[in-house]
Amino acid sequence: MALVVQKYGGSSLETADRIKRVAERIVATRKAGNDVVVVCSAMGDTTDELLDLAKQVNPVPPGREMDMLLTAGERISNSLVAMAISALGAEARSFSGSQAGVITTSTHGKARIIDVTPSRVREALDKGHIVLVAGFQGVSQDTKDITTLGRGGSDTTAVALAAALNADVCEIYTDVDGVYSADPRIVPDAKKLDRVTYEEMLEMAASGAKVLMLRCVEYARRYGVPIHVRSSYSTKPGTVVSGSMEDLPVEQAMITGVAHDRSEAKVTVVGVPDTAGVAARIFRTVADTEIDIDMVLQNVSSTVSGKTDITFTLSKSNGPTAVAALEKIREELGFTQVLYDDHVGKVSLVGAGMRSHPGVTATFCEALAKVGVNIEIINTSEIRISVLIRDTQLDEAVRAIHEAFELGGDEAAVVYAGSGR
Amino acid sequence: MALVVQKYGGSSLETADRIKRVAERIVATRKAGNDVVVVCSAMGDTTDELLDLAKQVNPVPPGREMDMLLTAGERISNSLVAMAISALGAEARSFSGSQAGVITTSTHGKARIIDVTPSRVREALDKGHIVLVAGFQGVSQDTKDITTLGRGGSDTTAVALAAALNADVCEIYTDVDGVYSADPRIVPDAKKLDRVTYEEMLEMAASGAKVLMLRCVEYARRYGVPIHVRSSYSTKPGTVVSGSMEDLPVEQAMITGVAHDRSEAKVTVVGVPDTAGVAARIFRTVADTEIDIDMVLQNVSSTVSGKTDITFTLSKSNGPTAVAALEKIREELGFTQVLYDDHVGKVSLVGAGMRSHPGVTATFCEALAKVGVNIEIINTSEIRISVLIRDTQLDEAVRAIHEAFELGGDEAAVVYAGSGR
Repeated sequence: MALVVQKYGGSSLETADRIKRVAERIVATRKAGNDVVVVCSAMGDTTDELLDLAKQVNPVPPGREMDMLLTAGERISNSLVAMAISALGAEARSFSGSQAGVITTSTHGKARIIDVTPSRVREALDKGHIVLVAGFQGVSQDTKDITTLGRGGSDTTAVALAAALNADVCEIYTDVDGVYSADPRIVPDAKKLDRVTYEEMLEMAASGAKVLMLRCVEYARRYGVPIHVRSSYSTKPGTVVSGSMEDLPVEQAMITGVAHDRSEAKVTVVGVPDTAGVAARIFRTVADTEIDIDMVLQNVSSTVSGKTDITFTLSKSNGPTAVAALEKIREELGFTQVLYDDHVGKVSLVGAGMRSHPGVTATFCEALAKVGVNIEIINTSEIRISVLIRDTQLDEAVRAIHEAFELGGDEAAVVYAGSGR
Repeated sequence: MALVVQKYGGSSLETADRIKRVAERIVATRKAGNDVVVVCSAMGDTTDELLDLAKQVNPVPPGREMDMLLTAGERISNSLVAMAISALGAEARSFSGSQAGVITTSTHGKARIIDVTPSRVREALDKGHIVLVAGFQGVSQDTKDITTLGRGGSDTTAVALAAALNADVCEIYTDVDGVYSADPRIVPDAKKLDRVTYEEMLEMAASGAKVLMLRCVEYARRYGVPIHVRSSYSTKPGTVVSGSMEDLPVEQAMITGVAHDRSEAKVTVVGVPDTAGVAARIFRTVADTEIDIDMVLQNVSSTVSGKTDITFTLSKSNGPTAVAALEKIREELGFTQVLYDDHVGKVSLVGAGMRSHPGVTATFCEALAKVGVNIEIINTSEIRISVLIRDTQLDEAVRAIHEAFELGGDEAAVVYAGSGR
């Protein structure tokens, strides 16, 4: 008998009918002889509706109260799924994050899980019950206040519970069939991957693949929890994320897939005096506003002027804050101006086999050159190449690279309505 | 500095604008130098919407999950009010029933409060914060599961917190100006009462006055918590419920008011053999279905047949269950038939002064006779007379009694839209 943790997203729980369908799948898993723990996100638009109400009463709502508000959404969906399970004749018990022992830091809105002490979950499982746990939420270790985990929080809850309960697998149900070699909406012959290592999935997620959030994969890798990403609307196997690159057989396909990201913008600080410590001051200024930067490029400084340009990318949503912070130190540091460009896109190639195969970078750049795409920044890791290009050329670039590395499958990818989230 | 507990009902919190208005009143109370604890019901129709969703996934939802579902409503309203308070520059902290230490029995859907241990509430008050507590909910002492208190639960939460915190007053905000000498929609010159004793309020509530639920008044009486019933839409004082009849000055008005009730039905068991134990069997049969009965009448038995009729009243919602249970024992007990009549109404006169004033019953019956109202059952307590009559004559009876005892005020009563709940 296996212990299976399942996580269902909000779109799988949007209506009473969909909730019933999810309940059927859960009961079938139980009847197949498994212990089942289920983590549900809030139904469809619940979170957005609550956010909207909050904004109406307070444009800058306090984080503690925001978390108290938003966590109601997962309580609702979880108890409804428990009811639907009970209508099918099985016994279910729902628990809030706090009741399930999800202990977090006290940073409201983006708390991190410190520990999971699922004694009540274990007890209910021992009684033969199906257990539901409200995702995305926990209780702060210090203040005992309700917290939320931020974006992708329900996936992380599921993986953390799977780790704490030593589950055999954590199934993440979504509206796509699994992890693809590229976004099937851009590349029609993108291939569903049967298996991906944690490292490859981390690089894919960091490069813009939306199917799994980075922190959830990080958590799974740390505790060795196998993740099975699969569709809520079919029973076909999806993609298993597990194992490390060291375990891969030598004949393993060298490239995993192509990821792309439209969420970044480019900031260029022009005319920076090329003296020690100035670049550091610039990056410290951005870091002090709690903004993460991604790619970085520093031009070779001009021997005539002794000045250089520093370019970096960040999330579009952080653009205005970063630019404002930099403008404040312009006179002090003596640079000329700050340029902001949000018409960029990032395309990445990820693959564990890349390490031992020379020529990947050359093929990558040749594929882009052939379709006339100009590279603005290039950045590599051991198993990834990323380039920043014009956003208008992003789709074409994804297709060109996917084809150059022969990543396509035999059958057309299945794309469900609503998979654009 | 006083400690004030305030309770706001769902209609006062129906929209973002109403929530803001409630927040203003709370902050004004705090600024006047009081410590403030606030209990909010769920917003407007939230509970009905959640009930509807539940029914869609399971026609007979398990009580434990129902409570997990419904308690989300109060979390939402409480956190929104906390946000609105914070927008006005004051500090607020919202707590779930469980966090506020509301400990209950484990009867889901109608749990009773066993104890209130409000250490976190006290701590927040000591820091100068306004405290919000989700009404209607608690946590079971035995199972640590989330429970709800049933109808009128938020009022009871407020009174229980006021008792545990030794508050100076528990203000119940509603959509009427206070407790009236009769329903102002029936009696236009009904008078708002400035003060009512616990005993009188208990009799009024038990007789159908909807402004306060019976159990909330019982709780207040047991712990001596003064309740101030007042309007969310004005700053005028309402009705204070406090003190016992023993404390009343002799010249106190002898009659409090007229209450009426359309929620009851009448059951008559016809041709009951008049032998020892038969009536007891009938009432035991009804009691075993967990149905409360109200008024009872046993006719003098006919000397010819040795048979009698037994009549009693109960809530209309329980009618079918009671009739079915009685039909099952008809042959065994040998009675002729069970009659069911749901076109009855109950009108009651309540007043502490009644005890020491003979002739009240006579005046009461004369008033009804004068307008041609026939009395079907009569039932009295030390401070109350109730009669069962035809429902079509109920309004007229209320007006006749109100006038006979000269209970009217000088000004017309204020009736708000929506006070029909």
